[in-house]
Amino acid sequence: MALPKQSEDFPGWYQEVVKQAELAETSLARGTMVIKPYGFAIWEAIQRAVDDRIKATGHQNLYFPLFIPYSLLEKEAEHVEGFAPEVAVVTHAGGEKLEEPLVVRPTSETIIWNTYAKWIQSYRDLPLLYNQWCNVVRWELRPRIFLRTTEFLWQEGHTAHETADEAIAEARMILEDVYADAVEKVLAVPVRRGRKTAAERFAGAVETMAIEGLMRDRKALQAGTSHYLGQNFAKAYGVQFQGRGGDLEFAYATSWGVSTRLVGGAIMTHGDDKGLRLPPALAPYQVVIVPIYKNDDEKGSVVAKARAIKDSLTGVRVRIDDRDEHRPGYKFNEWELKGVPLRIELGPRDIAADQVMIARRDTGEKQTLPTGEVPARVPRLLEDIQVSLFAQASAFRDEYSFDAKDYGELAALIADPGGFVTGGWCGNPECEAKVKADTKATIRYLPLDPEPPAGECIVCGTAAVERATWAQAY
Amino acid sequence: MALPKQSEDFPGWYQEVVKQAELAETSLARGTMVIKPYGFAIWEAIQRAVDDRIKATGHQNLYFPLFIPYSLLEKEAEHVEGFAPEVAVVTHAGGEKLEEPLVVRPTSETIIWNTYAKWIQSYRDLPLLYNQWCNVVRWELRPRIFLRTTEFLWQEGHTAHETADEAIAEARMILEDVYADAVEKVLAVPVRRGRKTAAERFAGAVETMAIEGLMRDRKALQAGTSHYLGQNFAKAYGVQFQGRGGDLEFAYATSWGVSTRLVGGAIMTHGDDKGLRLPPALAPYQVVIVPIYKNDDEKGSVVAKARAIKDSLTGVRVRIDDRDEHRPGYKFNEWELKGVPLRIELGPRDIAADQVMIARRDTGEKQTLPTGEVPARVPRLLEDIQVSLFAQASAFRDEYSFDAKDYGELAALIADPGGFVTGGWCGNPECEAKVKADTKATIRYLPLDPEPPAGECIVCGTAAVERATWAQAY
Repeated sequence: MALPKQSEDFPGWYQEVVKQAELAETSLARGTMVIKPYGFAIWEAIQRAVDDRIKATGHQNLYFPLFIPYSLLEKEAEHVEGFAPEVAVVTHAGGEKLEEPLVVRPTSETIIWNTYAKWIQSYRDLPLLYNQWCNVVRWELRPRIFLRTTEFLWQEGHTAHETADEAIAEARMILEDVYADAVEKVLAVPVRRGRKTAAERFAGAVETMAIEGLMRDRKALQAGTSHYLGQNFAKAYGVQFQGRGGDLEFAYATSWGVSTRLVGGAIMTHGDDKGLRLPPALAPYQVVIVPIYKNDDEKGSVVAKARAIKDSLTGVRVRIDDRDEHRPGYKFNEWELKGVPLRIELGPRDIAADQVMIARRDTGEKQTLPTGEVPARVPRLLEDIQVSLFAQASAFRDEYSFDAKDYGELAALIADPGGFVTGGWCGNPECEAKVKADTKATIRYLPLDPEPPAGECIVCGTAAVERATWAQAY
Repeated sequence: MALPKQSEDFPGWYQEVVKQAELAETSLARGTMVIKPYGFAIWEAIQRAVDDRIKATGHQNLYFPLFIPYSLLEKEAEHVEGFAPEVAVVTHAGGEKLEEPLVVRPTSETIIWNTYAKWIQSYRDLPLLYNQWCNVVRWELRPRIFLRTTEFLWQEGHTAHETADEAIAEARMILEDVYADAVEKVLAVPVRRGRKTAAERFAGAVETMAIEGLMRDRKALQAGTSHYLGQNFAKAYGVQFQGRGGDLEFAYATSWGVSTRLVGGAIMTHGDDKGLRLPPALAPYQVVIVPIYKNDDEKGSVVAKARAIKDSLTGVRVRIDDRDEHRPGYKFNEWELKGVPLRIELGPRDIAADQVMIARRDTGEKQTLPTGEVPARVPRLLEDIQVSLFAQASAFRDEYSFDAKDYGELAALIADPGGFVTGGWCGNPECEAKVKADTKATIRYLPLDPEPPAGECIVCGTAAVERATWAQAY
């Protein structure tokens, strides 16, 4: 049952922690997963954090169908090229062969922009600021639980705008005020915000922006993307509106999404050799109370006291683990594995002394606390853990962020210790491809805003147009 | 743009109100729909009401895959017979033909019980009290928006128990404490609770219970079902556990669901010839404020006042409709069509008199109210509307609930005026089939609890075993 050490076998550690903490398991159809209750509660917390921000920034939820006629997918050339190889196709339904096969949505730009053509007639109909929560399917060659599954859960926002500037501002606002904010404040995962290169862009996008986190194995994880799609989809699906000047114009689009992959990101950012460490804002249980007793008499009074403590913690998610079939030591290990931020131990001697023992999962620190102070101290400890996990992850990320002075150093740093490595880039896809071939690292991000001249390209030595940041990535 | 009258063309009224109130529209793939933001906000309110109750009764959410290997569907004989004709089948994915076709879930008993076989070893693992929110696909012959769509959104609960009694109690608790409670209190739709006949049972169930509402056209709508599945699925998927006595036993199952069909039920229960009438607990906007002004000067002060009123209504969902392109009369009609429970009209003369005009959507009553009383009165008015809509729907349902004394009267009442018609039934499926053939009415429910001897079968005259309630239904 022991977890592999992160330093020795990070992929093995990840697989085992997902399994032993009962987050998810693989299912029968290739690359699909069952998200178990404990993992799903984490996803629900992520959903709330993201959905609250999506709504607070003026968007509404709606729902488009799972099935997209194949011919619709083909209308945007780059998009179909990107997604056609990955789609699952329904050919039969209701006992008959369908006249036209249906694609199971890999993403919904096609069906949505085909529908927006009906909804958008005039500049007065704009902007459309819509989002949906749903499942999508992409036939991945190397599925990996939470990180890359053939079916995953996500939200996809799809907005339509009168002007390019407005759409660009929307895509950026989502990246910063919705995604980065939710991921940093709730998941406590620090992220870099940046633009993607053409090679890493969403199929059909003019510009893709992303947030990138650094996992404990010093590989990057793309944690959310926000795309400015220009007029590509409006032109492919005929979405024209009468502008303020009376002319017919094509609408400008954005789309953006975060997915169940974020659960994997939280695991790999905070976990240690004992298992998960969950930020309190994300934790299904923020506090577990383990009653300690030798017989039924003791159990009665200890559990009653545990309930009183639970009731005193209004607004805190508390679980009392009064299972008889396991001993306290077993429970301590299990809840450490499951990453519960605070553990309260409570036995007859504690009750006699009117105190509890309280242990932090993030630091392992234990302290006794007068029972009367629990309602005031626990929320502050939880805040402290939330802040501390973010600070630790930020320090780790910064420790493994490097400026490389030449190509040899870039390659050496990527190989060992890994992390984010920044250097000048000439903008040539060939230089980008060379780094990938030599080191398996890709450009994770370019600066969001234009920056002053950047010296030389670290690959070819010609003038750099901007500074790129490389990493090996999930 | 005028709606057909309910009394003249109820199906036409329904279609038009769904369209004009911007609730949903049909999409490209056969029988699918786009749920538009206003309709989706109603569904979100339903989800919250049901999800809160599911969690409060000790259940947890999780997620199982969309795709089910075809062979898995075939293991429970009655189940496959019921669902195989309706499934959509994925035969190709990732550019290749699949070795085994995948079914798009029509419901998830098969994949869930196949997985429970791994999760259940001992009586200590029971009960499992799980639920998922997801989309399902059933290839319907006569799709109808919200009521019967090829893809729909729902929740499906799947629980596993040690004993039959416990499973039966669970199925009934869900019917009464979760479904009937949420539907009556939030949707304000009164429902009858009952058992289904064998002919109307879920494929694979031992007993199906349902809640049934009566729509404004006096047809019944099955609004939620809760099934006791006995050991059928445990046996089909090999879900055995070590019981308290040490023997291996098969687990007992329930499953239960409500879907986006409930949106249709709320429309058809409360709507009138002017459009929707939404119960406040369900309404995306509970209050709309329509500012009345002749010029920009007036607009500035009236909208400022409207905002102050909105801010004073904490906890109330308020929308200010300050669109310049429409006149107040147009807005009044639009929000009546959309069923907003309360409309506040506010013009310069109202401001001068420190009052507002407030109109109830349910009764059409208008009254002036001193501005200072708005924060206290609006929540009470909303409560009143919620109660009143439920009372109206209950009175309507009771007005069209009949006891028939003989077969002629049963057939006559079903034909005109329609509604729920109750009579003795011998339990013979042939009598049930005869009523259906003669009148298109089905037995909507049998009593939940056994009742005293019930006289004669209204169809064949032999001894009745219980009293059945018939209606034509959606």
